[in-house]
Amino acid sequence: MSTALNHLGIVKRNITRAERGAVEALSRFGVATVHEAMGRVGLMKPYLRPIYPGARLCGPALTVLLQPGDNWMLHVAAEQIQQGDVVVAACTSDSEDGFFGELLATSFRARGARGLVIDGGVRDVRELTVMQFPVFSRAISARGTVKATLGSVNVPVVCAGALVNPGDVVVADDDGVVAVPAALARRVAEAAAAREANEADKRKQLAAGRLGLDMYRMREPLEKLGLKYVD
Amino acid sequence: MSTALNHLGIVKRNITRAERGAVEALSRFGVATVHEAMGRVGLMKPYLRPIYPGARLCGPALTVLLQPGDNWMLHVAAEQIQQGDVVVAACTSDSEDGFFGELLATSFRARGARGLVIDGGVRDVRELTVMQFPVFSRAISARGTVKATLGSVNVPVVCAGALVNPGDVVVADDDGVVAVPAALARRVAEAAAAREANEADKRKQLAAGRLGLDMYRMREPLEKLGLKYVD
Amino acid sequence: MSTALNHLGIVKRNITRAERGAVEALSRFGVATVHEAMGRVGLMKPYLRPIYPGARLCGPALTVLLQPGDNWMLHVAAEQIQQGDVVVAACTSDSEDGFFGELLATSFRARGARGLVIDGGVRDVRELTVMQFPVFSRAISARGTVKATLGSVNVPVVCAGALVNPGDVVVADDDGVVAVPAALARRVAEAAAAREANEADKRKQLAAGRLGLDMYRMREPLEKLGLKYVD
Amino acid sequence: MSTALNHLGIVKRNITRAERGAVEALSRFGVATVHEAMGRVGLMKPYLRPIYPGARLCGPALTVLLQPGDNWMLHVAAEQIQQGDVVVAACTSDSEDGFFGELLATSFRARGARGLVIDGGVRDVRELTVMQFPVFSRAISARGTVKATLGSVNVPVVCAGALVNPGDVVVADDDGVVAVPAALARRVAEAAAAREANEADKRKQLAAGRLGLDMYRMREPLEKLGLKYVD
Amino acid sequence: MSTALNHLGIVKRNITRAERGAVEALSRFGVATVHEAMGRVGLMKPYLRPIYPGARLCGPALTVLLQPGDNWMLHVAAEQIQQGDVVVAACTSDSEDGFFGELLATSFRARGARGLVIDGGVRDVRELTVMQFPVFSRAISARGTVKATLGSVNVPVVCAGALVNPGDVVVADDDGVVAVPAALARRVAEAAAAREANEADKRKQLAAGRLGLDMYRMREPLEKLGLKYVD
Amino acid sequence: MSTALNHLGIVKRNITRAERGAVEALSRFGVATVHEAMGRVGLMKPYLRPIYPGARLCGPALTVLLQPGDNWMLHVAAEQIQQGDVVVAACTSDSEDGFFGELLATSFRARGARGLVIDGGVRDVRELTVMQFPVFSRAISARGTVKATLGSVNVPVVCAGALVNPGDVVVADDDGVVAVPAALARRVAEAAAAREANEADKRKQLAAGRLGLDMYRMREPLEKLGLKYVD
Repeated sequence: MSTALNHLGIVKRNITRAERGAVEALSRFGVATVHEAMGRVGLMKPYLRPIYPGARLCGPALTVLLQPGDNWMLHVAAEQIQQGDVVVAACTSDSEDGFFGELLATSFRARGARGLVIDGGVRDVRELTVMQFPVFSRAISARGTVKATLGSVNVPVVCAGALVNPGDVVVADDDGVVAVPAALARRVAEAAAAREANEADKRKQLAAGRLGLDMYRMREPLEKLGLKYVD
Repeated sequence: MSTALNHLGIVKRNITRAERGAVEALSRFGVATVHEAMGRVGLMKPYLRPIYPGARLCGPALTVLLQPGDNWMLHVAAEQIQQGDVVVAACTSDSEDGFFGELLATSFRARGARGLVIDGGVRDVRELTVMQFPVFSRAISARGTVKATLGSVNVPVVCAGALVNPGDVVVADDDGVVAVPAALARRVAEAAAAREANEADKRKQLAAGRLGLDMYRMREPLEKLGLKYVD
Repeated sequence: MSTALNHLGIVKRNITRAERGAVEALSRFGVATVHEAMGRVGLMKPYLRPIYPGARLCGPALTVLLQPGDNWMLHVAAEQIQQGDVVVAACTSDSEDGFFGELLATSFRARGARGLVIDGGVRDVRELTVMQFPVFSRAISARGTVKATLGSVNVPVVCAGALVNPGDVVVADDDGVVAVPAALARRVAEAAAAREANEADKRKQLAAGRLGLDMYRMREPLEKLGLKYVD
Repeated sequence: MSTALNHLGIVKRNITRAERGAVEALSRFGVATVHEAMGRVGLMKPYLRPIYPGARLCGPALTVLLQPGDNWMLHVAAEQIQQGDVVVAACTSDSEDGFFGELLATSFRARGARGLVIDGGVRDVRELTVMQFPVFSRAISARGTVKATLGSVNVPVVCAGALVNPGDVVVADDDGVVAVPAALARRVAEAAAAREANEADKRKQLAAGRLGLDMYRMREPLEKLGLKYVD
Repeated sequence: MSTALNHLGIVKRNITRAERGAVEALSRFGVATVHEAMGRVGLMKPYLRPIYPGARLCGPALTVLLQPGDNWMLHVAAEQIQQGDVVVAACTSDSEDGFFGELLATSFRARGARGLVIDGGVRDVRELTVMQFPVFSRAISARGTVKATLGSVNVPVVCAGALVNPGDVVVADDDGVVAVPAALARRVAEAAAAREANEADKRKQLAAGRLGLDMYRMREPLEKLGLKYVD
Repeated sequence: MSTALNHLGIVKRNITRAERGAVEALSRFGVATVHEAMGRVGLMKPYLRPIYPGARLCGPALTVLLQPGDNWMLHVAAEQIQQGDVVVAACTSDSEDGFFGELLATSFRARGARGLVIDGGVRDVRELTVMQFPVFSRAISARGTVKATLGSVNVPVVCAGALVNPGDVVVADDDGVVAVPAALARRVAEAAAAREANEADKRKQLAAGRLGLDMYRMREPLEKLGLKYVD
């Protein structure tokens, strides 16, 4: 069990990644749908933004705990990457420095990473865009970082307000980033599929001019709460 | 008269929209020009941003007062939309949740809405971009909202720092969002036209290298205030 | 010598710009590289953002000290612009008003300016984008400014947290904005070139799957600090 | 009627202040109680804070619309102050400069003002604290302001997100600032009194260990919504 | 095991609180010391501030997951309070509304609570100060909340960036708030005691004018890194 | 001359402090007065706040350039402190960690320091308050810092937006922090004295009910600009 007193300075090599099929299933849905299917938990704060429009990713999380202004652990993490992983980097305190750039992206991609979610800053955004390496970050900053202090790899982290355990599935698109516990990945994918199927019919009705007030039977509860129509 | 004690839980059905011709006239100008033509009042705070570059809209405001994390009143508002309306949604306290997405946009468009200005968050930005449904929002967030508490429709609201009365003209583009009182719409459009005509000549002079210092006769007042040129 | 007691109300006409060759040399590098080559000083805060993706500029700084909500000094500055200059505008207190728009850009370009870095807001971003006039700003705001109070031109300014002396080289791209003292411009360009040469080889190795851990010989220092691998 | 096109550059001399008795009645209640009694509208944003703990005020609003970094209109407003007024100052764009200090407070007090609510900065906070002149502000800043551009006095303003008409009652204490429309002042005071009477009994029950769950009969609705107790 | 799909709408009645002795031991130390003793993890973000200077608390966490603008779960939580508990309230999205005031504090105290840590707003701060009921909050706001949507009690929560499990020890003082896992409480208390013992001697030496440079033997490592002394 | 390429890793031992008499003279004035006397330049941003009400300091600056999350240079700085110095610590990027606490304050005081101005966080605020060691900081945070990376001592720094050279006079009180160039200290003190003398008479007139409108002869310029009085 990972405990606080030895939470820093650790690299966990063997983690249980969400099963491949569940990851594939989740990759077909948008973040808003997955978040709803989760029961509305697990969403990272909306200050995380894609570095280019249309960036998206889905994969099991390889977690990193960084120290402010120090990206050493991203190099340590590179060795642990398996094909399809998403690197999820949290920081022990708020920092907008550029922890990550094109060289690390080259390394991460060579090792099989699908992208990066980082509660910190990144740089080389033009090059990363050309590479189409999806990154969701708190900031863009040209300021580099040092390699001086230990953090950890594959410990549970809180990233942009959401708890992420190594192996959890992380889904990100223009709407944000959500973490799905590995054990729930399949059930969440199923719930997402059900939700989407349900939405197709609603979309058709709404497009035809039917009101949500009627479709969702809202008139009665609104009236009970006292909604008044005046002229 | 709308008063505070019954400001919540109300839907006003009949509002006086700015006359169509004035709306059309205003739609030809950018927000910066309209704001200047207004005498520099009515601008919403610059944290409202378009969800895609190039988004723009102009139309009479259908106002909505939301509760934090609750988008029920947007469904109530849909029924009140008339062709060409812009839905302007304020919130009783700061909230960045995703109050609005593709399904509501489908409904709003089917009812005739031209777009949305919301002092809150929205989601499904990729789909909204594909639809070219213009939205100006405070944030982008995948987090959905509940339908539990009454707000109001077509009451005066303060949206991103600007007072908007139902029927006022709202103009939005890459530079921001401005609200023009319905009764002033025509005069503001005329002032905007005069301003633009005036700018064309200035632009030509400046492009030819003439200085604003000379064109606007600034040298004398600057000297009077004591501006010193040194080498 | 410029002193505080007469820091406002001054226009310095003759400034020593960084030599042209050094500016050219620096223009070939990205901001992240230049900042590293500088020894990691001189970077402006990351809240300065380009108004359109891909904006970039490099040139000697013509500095402006603005008063909040007042853009008079930008007109005064226009007369001092020489071919290739970058206007760098700081403000005596935080202000997000739209100090600059298409008319001033037309004038600046006619006088030879390459672009603008401003610790304030700008407007007419669509027109500026069409013009491809690069601007890095703190905000976008349609709100115009007055012409009432004296600031200065070509005094040392603190812009977004970085000290800029007139004639320093300013480099800006998607990663941010950095100021290079004129006297150091050549040496920084050389250091940047050395850095880039060095990176090409690293990139190749990383792309081939070699780890930074090995390439940078990090394993030993990490072990010394106590990094533990667990299963 | 005040309209946008002449919203700036106006001083309205005769305003209808809320009746004295209603102001007195409201002054006995805290802001949280008044806000509830209002039906939860009219609250200014919580970034307005008292400059010293325990500051409080209640009185009819004399409104001021300031320009950023310019406090001229506060001098114009001083002449319009009547005994018991609260000066409510909004700004046409966000500014944290020190618009107000000990000299103006001396003048305001001499003219009968009870205090100041300002969506901007103030200075001389030590002296204001010694004077026990209550101020609720957005910031504290030593930076002074100019006297160069016209704003208005006694026009409707949006201050920290709340609409305030001249003569409305403004109540402020450690919990924040609320504006009560003049015409509703008496009814709100009565509702506040009823609320307080009701709270005294609740307080006693809660102090005795009774649960809100039982006192407010929440168990049934919670169960209906599906709240589950687990061990 | 608590899972995401049923993370909302749950009240866990039986939780394992940190042992009383360890809580007592931890209560003797400041937050900075406890955080260091923890190995520098578990600290909440510094935007949480005490509502009055000198507020402090220490006790096992009773956790609450709130919905934005909705304090219903605080009432549900009251029933679960045991003598000495600290209520730790997180929110599913950022909200600065006043979730908590004097009536709830009266109830919480009657049930045995030592205080509140809340990633949201509170009100009645004057009354809470008179009661000396310690509260650490994100904001102060008079705005009340509704009781409409289910959250949870005694599930793991992320509060101001820190993971808190029910029963963990929470320590708060003027320096901030830290959470100590229940299983580590005793060891952290011991480490804190060792640290304090160590500091007493250092303090004496520093007070006598000895330099940290010498006391911590920093001169050699600084020289190795290349620190240069110039005149 | 200090240049960017060797701006880090330097300790300058001999600096020219503002003359003692001028420091003494400045210490008699508040920050607002000094800032005005300076011609309104040199003010640090208002996010710097005293850690306890009433904190104030005045003295020559011993400057420190910190790295984010690293307070090593504060230990290096301690050796350079001379009686009466104020330590002014800037950081190469934004960081709210607790760089400074009671042990360093003990050391600084033993070496003669009058206080600290830091564009970062501090901790042990209760102990610092008991010691009455004045600190003006950006944040309060219990999070400690490492000692791993070189910064500099006694180089020019930008602290909270203001340029500070070693030896400049720094004045701080409840209104904020201002830096006065050493060479100007005496002239600024004289200007401050003249300003205060002038204010005493104004205060008397304003207290007697005279209006600023008349005292400052504002009526004519206001009328010229078009201010209209309406009923």
